[in-house]
Amino acid sequence: MVDLNSLLYPRSIAVVGASTQPDKVGGMPIRLLRELGYAGRLYPVNPSAAEVQGLRAYGSLADIGEPVDLAIVAVPASASQDVMAQLAGNGTRAAVVFTSGFAEAGEGGVRMQDMLARSARDAGVTLLGPNCLGAMNLRERMFATFSPIPLSGVPPVGEVGLVSQSGAFGAYAYALAREAGLGLSHWVTTGNEAGLQVADVIEWLANDPNTRVILAYIEGCRDGQRLRQALAAARAAGKPVVVTKVGTTAAGARSAQSHTASLTGEDAVYQAVFDAYGVHRAHTLEEFFRLGYVLSRGRRPAAWQRPEGSGAAAVTPLAIVTVSGGVGIMMADRAEQLGLPLPPMPDDAAGALRTAIPFASTANPIDVTGQVVAQPRVFMDAIAGVARSGAYGCVAAFLAGGANAPRLWPELQQTIGALSEDAHAAPLLLAGIVDDDKRAWLEARGCLVFSEPGHAVEAVATLARAAALEAGRGTSPETGPRRDALPRGLPPEAAALSEYEAMRLLADAGVPVAPHGLAHDADEAVRIAEGLGYPVVVKLCSREILHKSDVGGVALNLADAQAVRDAFARMAQAVAQARTDGGAPVPFEGVLVARMVRGWGEVMVGVRRDPVFGLVALAGIGGTAVEIFRQSACGLAPLSCAQARAMLRDSRAAALCEGHRGNPVVDLDAAAQVLATVSQLAADLGERLDTLEINPFIVTAQGLVAADAVVTLRPDRRTAS
Amino acid sequence: MVDLNSLLYPRSIAVVGASTQPDKVGGMPIRLLRELGYAGRLYPVNPSAAEVQGLRAYGSLADIGEPVDLAIVAVPASASQDVMAQLAGNGTRAAVVFTSGFAEAGEGGVRMQDMLARSARDAGVTLLGPNCLGAMNLRERMFATFSPIPLSGVPPVGEVGLVSQSGAFGAYAYALAREAGLGLSHWVTTGNEAGLQVADVIEWLANDPNTRVILAYIEGCRDGQRLRQALAAARAAGKPVVVTKVGTTAAGARSAQSHTASLTGEDAVYQAVFDAYGVHRAHTLEEFFRLGYVLSRGRRPAAWQRPEGSGAAAVTPLAIVTVSGGVGIMMADRAEQLGLPLPPMPDDAAGALRTAIPFASTANPIDVTGQVVAQPRVFMDAIAGVARSGAYGCVAAFLAGGANAPRLWPELQQTIGALSEDAHAAPLLLAGIVDDDKRAWLEARGCLVFSEPGHAVEAVATLARAAALEAGRGTSPETGPRRDALPRGLPPEAAALSEYEAMRLLADAGVPVAPHGLAHDADEAVRIAEGLGYPVVVKLCSREILHKSDVGGVALNLADAQAVRDAFARMAQAVAQARTDGGAPVPFEGVLVARMVRGWGEVMVGVRRDPVFGLVALAGIGGTAVEIFRQSACGLAPLSCAQARAMLRDSRAAALCEGHRGNPVVDLDAAAQVLATVSQLAADLGERLDTLEINPFIVTAQGLVAADAVVTLRPDRRTAS
Repeated sequence: MVDLNSLLYPRSIAVVGASTQPDKVGGMPIRLLRELGYAGRLYPVNPSAAEVQGLRAYGSLADIGEPVDLAIVAVPASASQDVMAQLAGNGTRAAVVFTSGFAEAGEGGVRMQDMLARSARDAGVTLLGPNCLGAMNLRERMFATFSPIPLSGVPPVGEVGLVSQSGAFGAYAYALAREAGLGLSHWVTTGNEAGLQVADVIEWLANDPNTRVILAYIEGCRDGQRLRQALAAARAAGKPVVVTKVGTTAAGARSAQSHTASLTGEDAVYQAVFDAYGVHRAHTLEEFFRLGYVLSRGRRPAAWQRPEGSGAAAVTPLAIVTVSGGVGIMMADRAEQLGLPLPPMPDDAAGALRTAIPFASTANPIDVTGQVVAQPRVFMDAIAGVARSGAYGCVAAFLAGGANAPRLWPELQQTIGALSEDAHAAPLLLAGIVDDDKRAWLEARGCLVFSEPGHAVEAVATLARAAALEAGRGTSPETGPRRDALPRGLPPEAAALSEYEAMRLLADAGVPVAPHGLAHDADEAVRIAEGLGYPVVVKLCSREILHKSDVGGVALNLADAQAVRDAFARMAQAVAQARTDGGAPVPFEGVLVARMVRGWGEVMVGVRRDPVFGLVALAGIGGTAVEIFRQSACGLAPLSCAQARAMLRDSRAAALCEGHRGNPVVDLDAAAQVLATVSQLAADLGERLDTLEINPFIVTAQGLVAADAVVTLRPDRRTAS
Repeated sequence: MVDLNSLLYPRSIAVVGASTQPDKVGGMPIRLLRELGYAGRLYPVNPSAAEVQGLRAYGSLADIGEPVDLAIVAVPASASQDVMAQLAGNGTRAAVVFTSGFAEAGEGGVRMQDMLARSARDAGVTLLGPNCLGAMNLRERMFATFSPIPLSGVPPVGEVGLVSQSGAFGAYAYALAREAGLGLSHWVTTGNEAGLQVADVIEWLANDPNTRVILAYIEGCRDGQRLRQALAAARAAGKPVVVTKVGTTAAGARSAQSHTASLTGEDAVYQAVFDAYGVHRAHTLEEFFRLGYVLSRGRRPAAWQRPEGSGAAAVTPLAIVTVSGGVGIMMADRAEQLGLPLPPMPDDAAGALRTAIPFASTANPIDVTGQVVAQPRVFMDAIAGVARSGAYGCVAAFLAGGANAPRLWPELQQTIGALSEDAHAAPLLLAGIVDDDKRAWLEARGCLVFSEPGHAVEAVATLARAAALEAGRGTSPETGPRRDALPRGLPPEAAALSEYEAMRLLADAGVPVAPHGLAHDADEAVRIAEGLGYPVVVKLCSREILHKSDVGGVALNLADAQAVRDAFARMAQAVAQARTDGGAPVPFEGVLVARMVRGWGEVMVGVRRDPVFGLVALAGIGGTAVEIFRQSACGLAPLSCAQARAMLRDSRAAALCEGHRGNPVVDLDAAAQVLATVSQLAADLGERLDTLEINPFIVTAQGLVAADAVVTLRPDRRTAS
């Protein structure tokens, strides 16, 4: 982990390129640090001024006479190397480089940036930037930025750490956080990321005692392992991470041999990473800050039932209490979309409510009707009753404008006050119009307030996920390749395995495959077929011929020996006529004879190599579904069984196992285990794997059976080197 | 159309059940009307008080001595009949009944409500309620409600009419509109809808000169034709309608004979209705009001290209100008989701921008970078350049906090001021943090302001739809059954047509069907098969046997005469053994012999009867896609060709026509025409149609060919009566 203490808790700061004009890039940090109350030592460095903004100026870093913790660098790009040498000489620990004109400005800039990064590394200086808007530590009143935005107000000190790759986004986010009253701990923009990346800041915040929730804005990630490690650290610390990720990466070219790659965009891979680490993803700025608000201020529901996969929504029973039937339905719609169950009101509470308001609905949503105006106590009793009933993980109540009503507010205060002191009461979330002072009172008691009723329901799902994450704190569900698990007998060079080799590889790894054998002549093919029982499939085996069906290398549904002989003859002839790319004859490796597996559906499973994040598994219903609807699910390989199960559900492939069209029910856990096993095989192949695709797995009463497999390998580097 | 003038523009109001206590249900309207400045005559009716809140009280309506335009009724349900008689005697034109305890309170209440409705109808009284929160006309300061909410403030008078079935929602919406500064014309809550329904209010608002945009909250609709007529009126008037519709209807039972019904929820039918009339649907309260804001205040882009179907998003080229690359990508992501093209910056403007800021991106999003602070004029020139270039329908600009910056604001004012006076400039939408006074200045010049960048992009799509709707004002694209189009030769009773009858019906209507013939003996079957060419399909024809395949009544892919003879024999035997539900022998109607149509995909098309909205057409890719993914599209029958095309696109069925897997490209318009023809046949069958399902249409190089059809009829009422 990179240590950011010198950057974010500096006891001394030098501003290199300090300007006497407070509104210039080199002047603003001095103005901010002085006006907003930074308590450490501040050294303007400016060779042509004796004084800068009332402070003694230093001609160079060397003149300061002590190593500084942090240098803020606001000099032209051309001077940056010289400054870096000064920093090394001074023993400076961290540097923020505002200067632009580096990698974003073309090839010359890229070279300068590389030099800057190398110098910083060599000198042991933690580098933020270049081309960044700097960093702030709100608690320490430390404003290492040239953005004037803190002059118009500082957000409250809080437990939300914010890191943004983009400076403009960071500044906007700062302003929105201030408007929303969201309490911040740190604010960091990483710019060109020559040194620190967003991932480094996330990892440090995961270990910072003043940060409880991490908000990150990511445009693109170059080092997938670093990001995964950071997210794993946050998960281990039980700290929720909220990410906004825009656009797509300029990822490298994809393998053309497998069509798996074309079935998922880069975004699906990012989502798989976020799912794997329980990251909350925000698609709008509003959602970004709302998640920050919910996660930093909201009480967690008691652990109810652990979610199946870390990406799955937790199952937390919710009570909806409403003064409007229609809004109640709106909230119930949202709860259903989020998979939050709405069990009916327990009998005791229901009886009490019906006695008070005969026409109240005691189903869930619990509709106390407009009678709340006349009988506020009944509404409060209903809320308290369900919160204390033990039947719900959370209570979401829609009050319309009720909280502001003079008759209702004291009753609400009394109820919320009592519930907030009752550790066994379920957390309460309110939707309605609430004046600022009343809202603050409610929030201080752990009662979140929203104006959009659906947001209260979404917050329940968010808090349930966070509770599950926090409950798993310190555990590390990371898996990886098994030691020495690389299968034997693989060709050392880049190769597409033959159908037979691929089927053997799967079978050896424990993946159910169609019963099969390898035949080198027609008699052997018939012998194998008769051993398996007709009908059979015959497929040409060749590492050189990738598209078997183009040369007549696939014969399905063969019913008798003659059909097998005919197929063998055709394939032997096809190989005899085939030539490699180099024009050489293609060696005949035999044919695969396999039992024709019958089922009622097809599942496709693929694993491919993402250039940023490594091996990614994909699953979905085969055929039209995966091709036209792109209805597939993505996960990082190797998958846990729970993750595999979640992927089968998300891609709807699970429907094929659940008695679809009157077919038998198939054990979904067993199917998920097959998927997990495939992903483990891919992980074991590790650097050797290019792509692995099983299309289709046939869904049978006995479970998934692989009927076709393509495996392509990259060269073995150990052999090559 | 129901006339709401007496309800919303009353010159005189009587409050029946007037209370001397201003906070009671019968007192509040008097308080509101007096305190908030209603200018008409106000008559409290209270037999036991001489004076009510300073006004002379009347013992009964008769004592008033003139017919009143509007009576506000706040008496117990038991007294409602008596009051209704008084209203009739007085000649009252409209009544708002607040009283609850009617249909929502059980059977007795339903009866009372029916009586109330009948009395109102007989007396010619326009009835709002019962169990409603009343109505307001903001322009006339007319507050016929018992909600105290207007006491804490009244929204500005504006052009947005709001109608809500739910009183609590209506009150909440009122408060939110006030907070958002949304200008309202009228506010109406319909409650139990014994008289006026939401649809009636929409239709009246469509004709109200003071209303430009209609916001409606609907819980459930009982009279689909009335709602359709109202939405058609709004469309004809060129007035956008925004609807929030929650939950699902308690619709009647579905036909179990077709599985079409199970493939779509009620919500899809509502959506089809909304799509057919160009209704803007809001899924959250925030969106409801935002759409109201956008549609009532936003300048429309010039007509660019008419959308394909009225439900399709208009194609309006958008320029995104941003000070943050990341936020630009976020906006571009949203534009892509909404189908808004982002053509690159025209050369002139691009050249000017690059000259000023060499590292600016002149692709679209146009990124002027953080340089905006140093060079605000460049940003303004970029905005003005694209707005005037003629290349864009709208310009959406992200300014972060820039509008509030002292150096930027005057420049922005100058630019917006000039653009707002230039009729040829594209409308500009801003995203960023903008102080209230500046925001008001911008909005007054037609420049909408959002804090969420994506909302500016969504607003472009909304305004483009509205512009297309307004351009089509006064036109009526309504279609319906063709006069005298009911096909001849249909059985008069409820019946499931035999496969042959169904195929004939389709063929006669102009739907392409597999070439076929009807055979009554094996020789005839073979003759037909040989005429068609093998392979063929043989299907049992019987109105009595619905599930043909259960009795072996479907034989596919028959390759020769013997196979046809065998199939015929099996089916004849199956019929001989079959019995009707009543135990009678089943008459043998022959077998259908049809050519086995080969293609590369299957499309299913169904039409069913929705109990509220009438005939609904459904289309999607057949098999797994429609069953597991429920990926289908819905529309009201008959469909226009453009609507059918949009359905093929929305359901992804169009992908099968677009060269999927190297198959030939099929004319999509021709495929859409087939779908439209099926829907027209259904419309022609009108009241006779129960369900019509073609599953599958085979996708072939020659277009869609129906391979199987199920048609079930309802009894002919003309014959029955």
